[in-house]
Amino acid sequence: MAKIIGTACPNLPWQERPANWHRPIWRDTGNPIIRHNQLRSSNSIFNSAVVPFRDGFAGVFRCDDIARHCRLHAGFSKDGIHWQIDESPIQFESDIPFEYGYDPRVCRIEDRWYVTWCNGMNGEPTIGLAETTDFRKFRQMENAFLPYNRNGVLFPRRINGMYVMLSRPSDNGATPFGDIYLSRSPDLRYWGDHRLVMRPVKFGWQSTKIGAGPVPIETDAGWLLIYHGVLTSCNGLVYAFGAALLDLDDPSKVIRRTPNYLLAPEELYERVGDVSNVVFPCATLQDSATGRIAIYYGCADTCVGIAYGYLDDVIAEMRDVPQ
Amino acid sequence: MAKIIGTACPNLPWQERPANWHRPIWRDTGNPIIRHNQLRSSNSIFNSAVVPFRDGFAGVFRCDDIARHCRLHAGFSKDGIHWQIDESPIQFESDIPFEYGYDPRVCRIEDRWYVTWCNGMNGEPTIGLAETTDFRKFRQMENAFLPYNRNGVLFPRRINGMYVMLSRPSDNGATPFGDIYLSRSPDLRYWGDHRLVMRPVKFGWQSTKIGAGPVPIETDAGWLLIYHGVLTSCNGLVYAFGAALLDLDDPSKVIRRTPNYLLAPEELYERVGDVSNVVFPCATLQDSATGRIAIYYGCADTCVGIAYGYLDDVIAEMRDVPQ
Amino acid sequence: MAKIIGTACPNLPWQERPANWHRPIWRDTGNPIIRHNQLRSSNSIFNSAVVPFRDGFAGVFRCDDIARHCRLHAGFSKDGIHWQIDESPIQFESDIPFEYGYDPRVCRIEDRWYVTWCNGMNGEPTIGLAETTDFRKFRQMENAFLPYNRNGVLFPRRINGMYVMLSRPSDNGATPFGDIYLSRSPDLRYWGDHRLVMRPVKFGWQSTKIGAGPVPIETDAGWLLIYHGVLTSCNGLVYAFGAALLDLDDPSKVIRRTPNYLLAPEELYERVGDVSNVVFPCATLQDSATGRIAIYYGCADTCVGIAYGYLDDVIAEMRDVPQ
Amino acid sequence: MAKIIGTACPNLPWQERPANWHRPIWRDTGNPIIRHNQLRSSNSIFNSAVVPFRDGFAGVFRCDDIARHCRLHAGFSKDGIHWQIDESPIQFESDIPFEYGYDPRVCRIEDRWYVTWCNGMNGEPTIGLAETTDFRKFRQMENAFLPYNRNGVLFPRRINGMYVMLSRPSDNGATPFGDIYLSRSPDLRYWGDHRLVMRPVKFGWQSTKIGAGPVPIETDAGWLLIYHGVLTSCNGLVYAFGAALLDLDDPSKVIRRTPNYLLAPEELYERVGDVSNVVFPCATLQDSATGRIAIYYGCADTCVGIAYGYLDDVIAEMRDVPQ
Amino acid sequence: MAKIIGTACPNLPWQERPANWHRPIWRDTGNPIIRHNQLRSSNSIFNSAVVPFRDGFAGVFRCDDIARHCRLHAGFSKDGIHWQIDESPIQFESDIPFEYGYDPRVCRIEDRWYVTWCNGMNGEPTIGLAETTDFRKFRQMENAFLPYNRNGVLFPRRINGMYVMLSRPSDNGATPFGDIYLSRSPDLRYWGDHRLVMRPVKFGWQSTKIGAGPVPIETDAGWLLIYHGVLTSCNGLVYAFGAALLDLDDPSKVIRRTPNYLLAPEELYERVGDVSNVVFPCATLQDSATGRIAIYYGCADTCVGIAYGYLDDVIAEMRDVPQ
Amino acid sequence: MAKIIGTACPNLPWQERPANWHRPIWRDTGNPIIRHNQLRSSNSIFNSAVVPFRDGFAGVFRCDDIARHCRLHAGFSKDGIHWQIDESPIQFESDIPFEYGYDPRVCRIEDRWYVTWCNGMNGEPTIGLAETTDFRKFRQMENAFLPYNRNGVLFPRRINGMYVMLSRPSDNGATPFGDIYLSRSPDLRYWGDHRLVMRPVKFGWQSTKIGAGPVPIETDAGWLLIYHGVLTSCNGLVYAFGAALLDLDDPSKVIRRTPNYLLAPEELYERVGDVSNVVFPCATLQDSATGRIAIYYGCADTCVGIAYGYLDDVIAEMRDVPQ
Repeated sequence: MAKIIGTACPNLPWQERPANWHRPIWRDTGNPIIRHNQLRSSNSIFNSAVVPFRDGFAGVFRCDDIARHCRLHAGFSKDGIHWQIDESPIQFESDIPFEYGYDPRVCRIEDRWYVTWCNGMNGEPTIGLAETTDFRKFRQMENAFLPYNRNGVLFPRRINGMYVMLSRPSDNGATPFGDIYLSRSPDLRYWGDHRLVMRPVKFGWQSTKIGAGPVPIETDAGWLLIYHGVLTSCNGLVYAFGAALLDLDDPSKVIRRTPNYLLAPEELYERVGDVSNVVFPCATLQDSATGRIAIYYGCADTCVGIAYGYLDDVIAEMRDVPQ
Repeated sequence: MAKIIGTACPNLPWQERPANWHRPIWRDTGNPIIRHNQLRSSNSIFNSAVVPFRDGFAGVFRCDDIARHCRLHAGFSKDGIHWQIDESPIQFESDIPFEYGYDPRVCRIEDRWYVTWCNGMNGEPTIGLAETTDFRKFRQMENAFLPYNRNGVLFPRRINGMYVMLSRPSDNGATPFGDIYLSRSPDLRYWGDHRLVMRPVKFGWQSTKIGAGPVPIETDAGWLLIYHGVLTSCNGLVYAFGAALLDLDDPSKVIRRTPNYLLAPEELYERVGDVSNVVFPCATLQDSATGRIAIYYGCADTCVGIAYGYLDDVIAEMRDVPQ
Repeated sequence: MAKIIGTACPNLPWQERPANWHRPIWRDTGNPIIRHNQLRSSNSIFNSAVVPFRDGFAGVFRCDDIARHCRLHAGFSKDGIHWQIDESPIQFESDIPFEYGYDPRVCRIEDRWYVTWCNGMNGEPTIGLAETTDFRKFRQMENAFLPYNRNGVLFPRRINGMYVMLSRPSDNGATPFGDIYLSRSPDLRYWGDHRLVMRPVKFGWQSTKIGAGPVPIETDAGWLLIYHGVLTSCNGLVYAFGAALLDLDDPSKVIRRTPNYLLAPEELYERVGDVSNVVFPCATLQDSATGRIAIYYGCADTCVGIAYGYLDDVIAEMRDVPQ
Repeated sequence: MAKIIGTACPNLPWQERPANWHRPIWRDTGNPIIRHNQLRSSNSIFNSAVVPFRDGFAGVFRCDDIARHCRLHAGFSKDGIHWQIDESPIQFESDIPFEYGYDPRVCRIEDRWYVTWCNGMNGEPTIGLAETTDFRKFRQMENAFLPYNRNGVLFPRRINGMYVMLSRPSDNGATPFGDIYLSRSPDLRYWGDHRLVMRPVKFGWQSTKIGAGPVPIETDAGWLLIYHGVLTSCNGLVYAFGAALLDLDDPSKVIRRTPNYLLAPEELYERVGDVSNVVFPCATLQDSATGRIAIYYGCADTCVGIAYGYLDDVIAEMRDVPQ
Repeated sequence: MAKIIGTACPNLPWQERPANWHRPIWRDTGNPIIRHNQLRSSNSIFNSAVVPFRDGFAGVFRCDDIARHCRLHAGFSKDGIHWQIDESPIQFESDIPFEYGYDPRVCRIEDRWYVTWCNGMNGEPTIGLAETTDFRKFRQMENAFLPYNRNGVLFPRRINGMYVMLSRPSDNGATPFGDIYLSRSPDLRYWGDHRLVMRPVKFGWQSTKIGAGPVPIETDAGWLLIYHGVLTSCNGLVYAFGAALLDLDDPSKVIRRTPNYLLAPEELYERVGDVSNVVFPCATLQDSATGRIAIYYGCADTCVGIAYGYLDDVIAEMRDVPQ
Repeated sequence: MAKIIGTACPNLPWQERPANWHRPIWRDTGNPIIRHNQLRSSNSIFNSAVVPFRDGFAGVFRCDDIARHCRLHAGFSKDGIHWQIDESPIQFESDIPFEYGYDPRVCRIEDRWYVTWCNGMNGEPTIGLAETTDFRKFRQMENAFLPYNRNGVLFPRRINGMYVMLSRPSDNGATPFGDIYLSRSPDLRYWGDHRLVMRPVKFGWQSTKIGAGPVPIETDAGWLLIYHGVLTSCNGLVYAFGAALLDLDDPSKVIRRTPNYLLAPEELYERVGDVSNVVFPCATLQDSATGRIAIYYGCADTCVGIAYGYLDDVIAEMRDVPQ
């Protein structure tokens, strides 16, 4: 049995597997837990990131406002289900412009949290980076990469002394391709040593593009990376998600990968919304004591759901897959 | 407080704002008020125009039939909610060909009503024009413009002696761009003095294209133009609507404009249908005595809904916006 | 009155026309009769083919698995409504590769059943062909055509001594065009004498592409071909279906054709799914004694529905249509 | 034998048909008569228009400068071969913006010359219009049409009391389609009565798009319209030109049309340049006394050539052609 | 040393390798040997096929006429260099429509010659087939395949009793992909047993698509197939050609292939024309006594050139190449 | 008068301005100085970089071989005109893969030369980097950036202690957009502080995309950056070049820029080749004593030319230009 490396999180949101459910991941029966119009000015709230914080949880939320501008808002929760999200977007302290922000991830490294997101740089997408110690003040740092990039995700500790980030280089629009790459940095400012991690596979749910999802979870079997994959149907894209194990010392090496998706759009709130047929995971909470994992995912680019599973069940789904 | 210029319309359909609703426009609780298969031969009824007529209301309706050909039908109603739509499409009297017709608007100027719509001319879209005094006989006139054009909307009176029409020049397909232009005519037959009115803005709900919606409403603050805007998501278009104030004397000048949309697809009947995620306004009824406005809009290219609001609330949403 | 030529099938699934329904085809009230996750490993089950078999029915089902790979599964039913579908995909016996399989049709000719489907050949779509006598063992034969092709459908008997197949030549992706062609073979292995049967019409439900649906039904008025047609809206494709009568002796000649669709997406399970707005017929059961026809069709590329109608009502919908 | 209606022009440039040349149109042996860098600031000079003027000729020239901005320059010549083109672009007197100008035509109507060209209107192409009496001062008038339009060409007299213009509605880029339309105006300011004149034919040199070329020449057999046609090869467009006869009273009616092109790119200066494989006629000089016609045409979007022919030979090439 | 199997052809056109030329294939110094306007009605003559015939040579020529319609003309020559091409296109005797014809190949099998070409079938490209014994009368047979196909090339004898044809399935336009497939027929009418032969390689001159060129040459080392390959540059396609050896008994098996091209556009007549940068081989003459091969190839879709080489030099260029 | 900062280079290739030439840059009369087939295995040699080296010059040359694979070759010259280019491509010493290489630049910083080029990384373009001290041994370093990137160009000294590189982020194909960005690095391995430098302008020669050309030349007026700009015509791209002055201390700030191009395709060897209409500068030699600059540029992606000019004349062409 594999073990999550890290602190226990006994108070993570959790529901046990329904009796008639045979797949390794299942949905919260109260989904969506965050609705699209929870804020007065929000058109939609989705693709958001949460972490344990003090005696509860904090998060950074993608809130598209009623101009359909993409904003990041901080939020807090006692139980991980009911969230108080600030009505006003985060005001980053920096000389680096925040133009727009979407699909945030939050990663704790040592004594602080780092937010990565898709940041506008002269109107083009790249990976924004900021740090906070209290989810009130956020100091924005230099953008990690040149445009065009999306889905930047940090590892939760230095590996061989270096910070490590996954990202998905892209073009300037709704990119019809996408691989997961890894980069290293001595200081979170200058990045290099770029390596390919994974590519789409020829047919199926992850055939158009793939991108890193939540911050990787350290386990004694490797880094557990939950990632989204996209299939192009004759009527548009379908976003599902699966998982991979990456080598602990060199996470550009893929150990195994799920040939099947773990979760795909099935419920009405995942199929119908501003973008139909999307499940898009951006964060997990996990309990090292029990192997339980709660996955926060955006639904149809409109609202937020949670799904649950056990580490061992997810690993059991993996196979050696041609990349 | 701004005032609508024109006659009172105390019997317009109306519901007051729901208690828990904080936005300036709200939906009729009985939406959709016209269903897609209300006619025996209709695949869908949407994007339609109504006006006060005698002691009730009349209208011209886009009814796509079960061959998916676009037809215009006349209809009548006592209350603006329950409509008797003719089973047979309008037979225009003219030598000018009616090839197909969609997205009609109806505008009263002096003693008669003018219908504008997207008319097929040798199979290509342009602005058709017809007049009626009774909604029984319609005399079709020359097409206003060369192809390719859509969303032709007349002003309800001559301005400085000239008829004025808004339109949205386009290409021959599902055009990925679109500005609102204004043209003038001495006689509704020959058109010129073309001017740009508004363009899309770089990001957000009106970033792909925009087009005039209902016939502009004259107010002492300017012409109130409700217009649709389109955003391109990674899985298709989203049609929402907002509003602008145009200069009374020179309506090619925009005074203010709503940075946020007034209404966007949110209900299942707006999200799911022949074209998902569409709210498309084509007509208003307004009561000068109270400032109440009822907006008729197509839902998902499938059925018709009504939304309500007060003039002052709509104007309060406007800002100076870079065009 | 036209007559179906063939055996009676008194036990086909059937519901009479609802009282308030005025169109010639109506849906089973229990639709969808096969749900997307009926198998443990199925993402979706749709676009499938059934035939009378022994004292009940057998079929070949398109089951996309949770890797979103397209597989064919055999299934059996007593009543045509409740189906036992094998958990494992069909293992074809052959040296000809089965790469993937979708949209099967099953055609009885003389003493056996032939399955045609869209088969992967070096990753490209063409028409796969196999035979079975028991729906347990399937012997795969040579692919009928070069890539790129889809929607291969056999006629249920030789015509003038030759096997006849309809197909829809395509390109290598989500083809934006498509005509129905006919080919002949002396032996089901070598094919020639290719003829055009039908093309899309300029506007409406069958304007983008068309493709043969179920195995043609022999009637004394001609071969009844139910076929799907596709319309391109500004937000994607809409799949509906209609019918045509083909000459008994030379089925490349179209006698009449339905200008209106017989069925188009209207119910939520037809509008929402992995591909929205799809009804896609792949099989019929028909009773020569009464003229009743049950049409099996895929819904939104996700599940299976049945619709019903009488032969005469379908023929009454047909007109001479410019092809 | 057909006769050109109009004044004699005995001094038009002219060379007789080469002995070994069997086609109805032949090139000047001194081509190109205007070189791309004839002006200090010109990148290219092409697609230009000339007219008889005083004792010689005047013209309006498309000169793309070394920023590759499209400008119009006036020019003068004694013999129609050697041209003095002003170093500075025309400064139009008007409140109507001249944004850019290309592909001018010059048409004498009564006592003055009208220039039509593709004018930028808010960055989009439409038909600009100006008048001059001396080719020194040009007064710009209202743009004739809404965007998007190109190839506006006036008839050289009123027909049934109305000014008449041909144009080619387009999209906002390098349009892959294009028909010739006709519009009428009482005053050169307001335009209507739009009619289709000609469309591309299915295969061959005029299969992608067509556009009016020089000002039509009045003959007793009809208006002689020389027009360009475009074929799309697997490596780009090929521009050739042919001719049609239009009804004298209703020039929206095509009497006959050349199935073969009259001239297509063949010489190195027509094949190689800023846009390869282009011959693009914008003006003619013709001599009513002899039926001789000199055609000025742009070569490879780089320089100007002249070709010659007799009216009767051109008409003899025409056939009844499906439009 | 490999040997050509077949008759000697001592009178094939020939020039020895120039002194300063180090590549295995070189051009005739008199190229192009057939000019674009050799016929009164020809816009271009290219991509044509020749064979030994009686005491000289005969051929079928692609002549695009001055309507830019694609026609096939017969021609004759004493020396293979100077050709008399019929002014009138071939009139095929058949009920099978000849709509248009391009890129012919001519293959002798037993006592007659078969012409294959890209034939229009309802306006779509497929493989036309005809036979002749005298190059005066041509009997057209059934089209070999369904659309969309191009570059059909027969083998010059039955293999294991079956006729064999190469072809390149395509889409309905300027296809951006293309593999070489092989099909078999017992009678030249019904075709099956389709097999993939070769695909493009990832980078370089044959990375976009490939297609069979001349009729394969039988040698004791295998079938020598000269084929064209296409590279997509940022400004269009470049057509070059190489060669492969196919297994004598099962020519769907590739033995070796040239990683480098044998000839690519280099001369002005290959770089400039109706389609720039094209060398397109359609026929060879070969002398079994000496191993000499003369390759006829179209130049820039405009004229015809010849290139020369020795069999052994061509084979020496081949390598095992990932297909 | 501006002064070049750096060493004299009295032996740079040079020709004075021709008498009849009024533009600030003129061509060598012996162009192209390097022909496409100068190597036995070269299809083309172009877009190459040269530097002063010992008593002559050295360079890195883009040689596309006859498989059309992109290779880098070293070369040496006494006079900068006649070059000995190694028949074998450079074999880089490194664990970092060299997949393909094109468009090299060579930059001396302190005691060694750095080569940057477009390097294949898992088949995708990014910026390769290598160092050499003798042009015999090249040590490849980590790729500077994630894909997709092209046109990486180093500054010839550290600025404020940091290495600085220009690049042009792109997509994975023939990118239809492109801005020049600047990045900084403490060690040539890890890069950050990314800033936009310049964008295309709306119309004209630099309207589609721009990219840095040769290594910037330090002058007392700023860094002189020669860069290419691309215009999209209706028949493909046209590559020209201009120049800008960048702030010495912060080269992300543009001081002035040439609204007109300095050189555009005009000669046959620039217009006709593997990619038509390309002039693409990759290197300069300059003489600080006289202000003379020799610009090496690729011609039509086929061969190499040189153009000449004086620093002051180039600066005199610059204007304040909206970026």
